Amino acid sequence: MLKDVQNEKDERNIPLKHVGIKNLSYPIIVLDKKNKIQHTVANINMFVDLPRDFRGTHMSRFVEIINDFHFKIEPKTIKQILDKLKESLNAQSAKIEITFPYFLKKEAPVTKIKSFLEYKCGFKAYDNDNKYDFYLIIEVPIQTLCPCSKEISKYNAHNQRAKVLMEIKTYDLIWFEELIEIAESSASSPLYTLLKRPDEKFVTEESYENPKFVEDVSRDIALKLKDDKRIKWFKVEVESFESIHSHNAYACVDSSVLEV
Amino acid sequence: MLKDVQNEKDERNIPLKHVGIKNLSYPIIVLDKKNKIQHTVANINMFVDLPRDFRGTHMSRFVEIINDFHFKIEPKTIKQILDKLKESLNAQSAKIEITFPYFLKKEAPVTKIKSFLEYKCGFKAYDNDNKYDFYLIIEVPIQTLCPCSKEISKYNAHNQRAKVLMEIKTYDLIWFEELIEIAESSASSPLYTLLKRPDEKFVTEESYENPKFVEDVSRDIALKLKDDKRIKWFKVEVESFESIHSHNAYACVDSSVLEV
Amino acid sequence: MLKDVQNEKDERNIPLKHVGIKNLSYPIIVLDKKNKIQHTVANINMFVDLPRDFRGTHMSRFVEIINDFHFKIEPKTIKQILDKLKESLNAQSAKIEITFPYFLKKEAPVTKIKSFLEYKCGFKAYDNDNKYDFYLIIEVPIQTLCPCSKEISKYNAHNQRAKVLMEIKTYDLIWFEELIEIAESSASSPLYTLLKRPDEKFVTEESYENPKFVEDVSRDIALKLKDDKRIKWFKVEVESFESIHSHNAYACVDSSVLEV
Amino acid sequence: MLKDVQNEKDERNIPLKHVGIKNLSYPIIVLDKKNKIQHTVANINMFVDLPRDFRGTHMSRFVEIINDFHFKIEPKTIKQILDKLKESLNAQSAKIEITFPYFLKKEAPVTKIKSFLEYKCGFKAYDNDNKYDFYLIIEVPIQTLCPCSKEISKYNAHNQRAKVLMEIKTYDLIWFEELIEIAESSASSPLYTLLKRPDEKFVTEESYENPKFVEDVSRDIALKLKDDKRIKWFKVEVESFESIHSHNAYACVDSSVLEV
Repeated sequence: MLKDVQNEKDERNIPLKHVGIKNLSYPIIVLDKKNKIQHTVANINMFVDLPRDFRGTHMSRFVEIINDFHFKIEPKTIKQILDKLKESLNAQSAKIEITFPYFLKKEAPVTKIKSFLEYKCGFKAYDNDNKYDFYLIIEVPIQTLCPCSKEISKYNAHNQRAKVLMEIKTYDLIWFEELIEIAESSASSPLYTLLKRPDEKFVTEESYENPKFVEDVSRDIALKLKDDKRIKWFKVEVESFESIHSHNAYACVDSSVLEV
Repeated sequence: MLKDVQNEKDERNIPLKHVGIKNLSYPIIVLDKKNKIQHTVANINMFVDLPRDFRGTHMSRFVEIINDFHFKIEPKTIKQILDKLKESLNAQSAKIEITFPYFLKKEAPVTKIKSFLEYKCGFKAYDNDNKYDFYLIIEVPIQTLCPCSKEISKYNAHNQRAKVLMEIKTYDLIWFEELIEIAESSASSPLYTLLKRPDEKFVTEESYENPKFVEDVSRDIALKLKDDKRIKWFKVEVESFESIHSHNAYACVDSSVLEV
Repeated sequence: MLKDVQNEKDERNIPLKHVGIKNLSYPIIVLDKKNKIQHTVANINMFVDLPRDFRGTHMSRFVEIINDFHFKIEPKTIKQILDKLKESLNAQSAKIEITFPYFLKKEAPVTKIKSFLEYKCGFKAYDNDNKYDFYLIIEVPIQTLCPCSKEISKYNAHNQRAKVLMEIKTYDLIWFEELIEIAESSASSPLYTLLKRPDEKFVTEESYENPKFVEDVSRDIALKLKDDKRIKWFKVEVESFESIHSHNAYACVDSSVLEV
Repeated sequence: MLKDVQNEKDERNIPLKHVGIKNLSYPIIVLDKKNKIQHTVANINMFVDLPRDFRGTHMSRFVEIINDFHFKIEPKTIKQILDKLKESLNAQSAKIEITFPYFLKKEAPVTKIKSFLEYKCGFKAYDNDNKYDFYLIIEVPIQTLCPCSKEISKYNAHNQRAKVLMEIKTYDLIWFEELIEIAESSASSPLYTLLKRPDEKFVTEESYENPKFVEDVSRDIALKLKDDKRIKWFKVEVESFESIHSHNAYACVDSSVLEV
C-alpha cells in the first residue's frame, strides 16, 4: 500500500482557496443550437478549496471526473461536475473554467455564400458552500470604424479588427448564438471568413455608415443585455487593434455600474 | 477647428467602468535595490471611468501623461500618474497596470558564478473616488519536487519548473528583491541561469531534501507574508508544469481566506 | 460589375514567392487509426506564388477551396487542394500548412486507467512546378531526466517536461500513432493525463532508469527513423523546459546530416 | 571530481546539427543610431553542432560566453561570440539568434508631438566551417488600406494594422533605422503611438491616398532593397490583420526569386 502523502495532517493552519489543475487540453462535445452538437477541443481549469488541516489535494480525481461525464460539457453537466468535485475531494467549494473554439456557419451579406467563423466560448462556474454561480463566456471578433476619424477627415475613416468579451451570469439557458447576434449587431460590422467583391463593398460601406468607438460598442451591447430577465450580472469588454496605433483601445462596462 | 466627437453628449445613460489603452509597449526605468536604477521595457494598460453623459475618452492623453513622467516608473510616480489621469480626463477613477522584465544577478550556490535571472514584475494601482490602492505584482520561476513521488518511489522524484505569482497590496515600500527571496526560499529549489557541475549536484540534492507540493509552496509563502505589517492584502498562486503530465498543478491562497 | 483590382497589370517586375491567407481557424475531420475519424480544429495557412505581372491574388478563393473539401483533411485530399489552388489562382506553385490538436486515449502504465493526451499534429505540402513534397508534423510532449544530474548527485536527478518536434517528408502513409510511439519510447518517460499512485511510482522510477539528455532523445529517434523506407527526409527537434533553469535545452538532427 | 557525462563517447553514430539553449531572457545593450546605445531585453537562442562521437554539449558555457561580452550585443560582437562558441565547445559550426524590442522616438505627422514606437529587432548569425552569414531581422508595424475595397465602394476602404518582417543578409553595417524607413514609406501609413486630432486626420487621408495590398507593400519594399549593394539576400513578409476577416492576408518575396 503506497502512502497517501496528500492526506497528511497539515500544521501550518493555512486554508487554500483553490487547488487543482490548469491548462488541461481535452476533446469535448458541446450543444449547438442548430446542429444539436458540436465537437471541439477544450482548455480546462478545475479547482476545489483545501481545508487548513490537509496537506494536498488529489489531482488525478479531477481528470477522472471529466472522464465520467464522457466529454459532454453543457450547462447542466457543469453543475454535476462541481457536485462530484466537492464530494470526491471533501471540499466546501469547487470551481471550473472551460473555454473552447465554437464555429457558426455564416452567410456573406450579399452573395449569401457560407463559411465558418470561430468564436471563443466557454463556461465558468463556482459552487461555494452550495451557493452556485454560472457564467457564459464568449469572445466575438468584430470590426470597429472610428467616428472621430470619419468626422474630421475629407474621406475614409480608420477601421480595424476588434474583439468583444462578454461574461454573463445567468439564471437560465442562453445560447451562444444569441450573444453573438447581440455583439455583431452592435459593431460597425461583423467579420466574415469568406467575402466576394459585392460582399466586401457592402461591408466597407456598412461600417462607414455605423462608426463606433469601443465605448459605443460596449454601451450598445449593455443596452441589449440590461433588460434581459435571464441575466443576473454581465461584464462587456471591447478591445480594438487600432489600425493607426500599435496599442489597443479598450472599454469595459459591467451591470453593477448601471445600478448605481 | 476639428470637431471633438468624443466630447459629444451621450444619451444612452450607460456609464463605463474603464476606458483607455491596452498593450502599450514602452521603454521605462525602474528602481533597483542594489544598482539604483534598471532600464527595462514595460507593457502598460491605463484606464479611467467614463461618466454616462460623455461619448468617448481621449486616448492620446494617456500616452502624453506617460511621456510627462519621463519613463521613470516607481511607486511614488504611479500615484501621480493616476492623479493626472483623473484631472486630464475629468474622471472619478483611474487605473494603471504596468508589467516588465526585471533582472537580478544571482550567485550559483557552490561556485558562486554570477548570472542574471528574469523576474516578471509590475505595479497595479487604482484611484477610485480618492480611495487609493497600490499593488506589487511579481512572477518568480522556481522548482518544485513532488513529495508523493519521493515517498512512494524506490529512488528519484518527479520535479519541474514552476512559477509563483504574487499580488501584494501594500501600505509601504516593499522591494521586489524581498518578495523574490520569500518565493525562492519557499520552493524545493530556486532556478539559476548558470550552473556548473558542483552547483547542479547541489541543486539536485537540495530539491530532493525539500520536496514541495504547489500547496506547500503557497502555504510557506503565505506564512512569511501574513505577519508583515506593511502588507494590507496578498494573493499567492503557484503553478507547476508537471513533468509527468501535460497539464499543470495549481494552488492559490489569499489573505482574506486566512482571516476567516 | 465591380472592378477586379487584383487582376490589374503590375509593372514593378517583382514576382512574389507566396501570397495567401494565414491563421485561419477552421473545424476539420482527420483520420484516426483506431476510431477511423477524429473531429478537431485546424489552424490553416495557404499560399500560391504570384507572377510578376499580376497585382494581387484572390484571397476568397483559398477559403472556397477548403469548403469544397467538406473539412475532410487527409494526406490524399492535401494533394487535391494544392491542385485546385494552382488551377483556381493560375499559379505555378502552391503551399499549405495545417496544424491541429489530435488526441489519443492512453493507458496508465500500471493501473491501465485511460485518459486522453493531446499531440499537436499537422501536414505541410508544397507543389512547386509539379514537384510535390508532403510532410507530417507532430509535437509530442515527453519527460527527460538529466543523466549528468543523476551521475553526480547522491540521490535524485532533475527531470522536466520536454517536447519533441518531428517533420517527416514521406513517400507513403505514416500514422501519427507510429511517430508518437517512436517519440515516447525514446524519452525518459512518456507523459500521461491520468496517473494513480502506483502509476506515479512507476513513471518516477522508469525515468530514473532511462536518463536522457535532449541530445540522447533526438539521436534515439533518429536511429528509429533513418532506416524507414517510407521516409524521404526528417528533422527531429527536442526542447526541454529545464527544471533547474528558466531557459530551455535544445537538440536538433536532420537526416541530411546523417548522409554526410 | 564530478564525472563529465556529456564528454562520454557516443556509439550511435548520429551527429547533431544544433545543440544548445533556447528562450534565454537577458538584459542587453544595443547600438542606437541617434543616442549611441539603447538598453533592452533580449530573447536568445545559441547553438553549436555536436560531432557523432560526443554524448552531449556543455550548456553552461553558452551563458558564460554571453556574460563575457558584458551584454553589449552588436554586429561585430556577434562574430566574436560565434568564434568563442566554436572554440569553447570544440564545434565546427555555431549559430545565434537574438531578438529584442527596440524603440524610436517618432514625430506625429502634423503636430510633431513625439512618442516612442516599438520595433521588434534582432540578429541571426551562423558560422559553418568558417563560412560566416549575418542577418538583420526586424518587424515593423504598419497600416494597410485595401485598394480593392476603395475601388468598389461608394466611400471608405477597409484598413488595418499589419506587420512587415524583414530578414536581411548583409556584407556591411545597415542601421535598423534605415530598414524602418523603407518599411514605413512602403505602407499605406506608418503607425504612431501618439496622434492628436490633426494628426489623425492626416493619417486617415494619407492611407486612403496610398491604398496597398500586402502584395504591394512587399513589392515596394523589395524594389528599395534590391539595388542596395550592402545586401546579399533578403526576405520580406507582410501580414495584415484584415479588419473584415478573422484571419490574415500574407505576401512574401525573397531576393532569390528576383534573380530567376
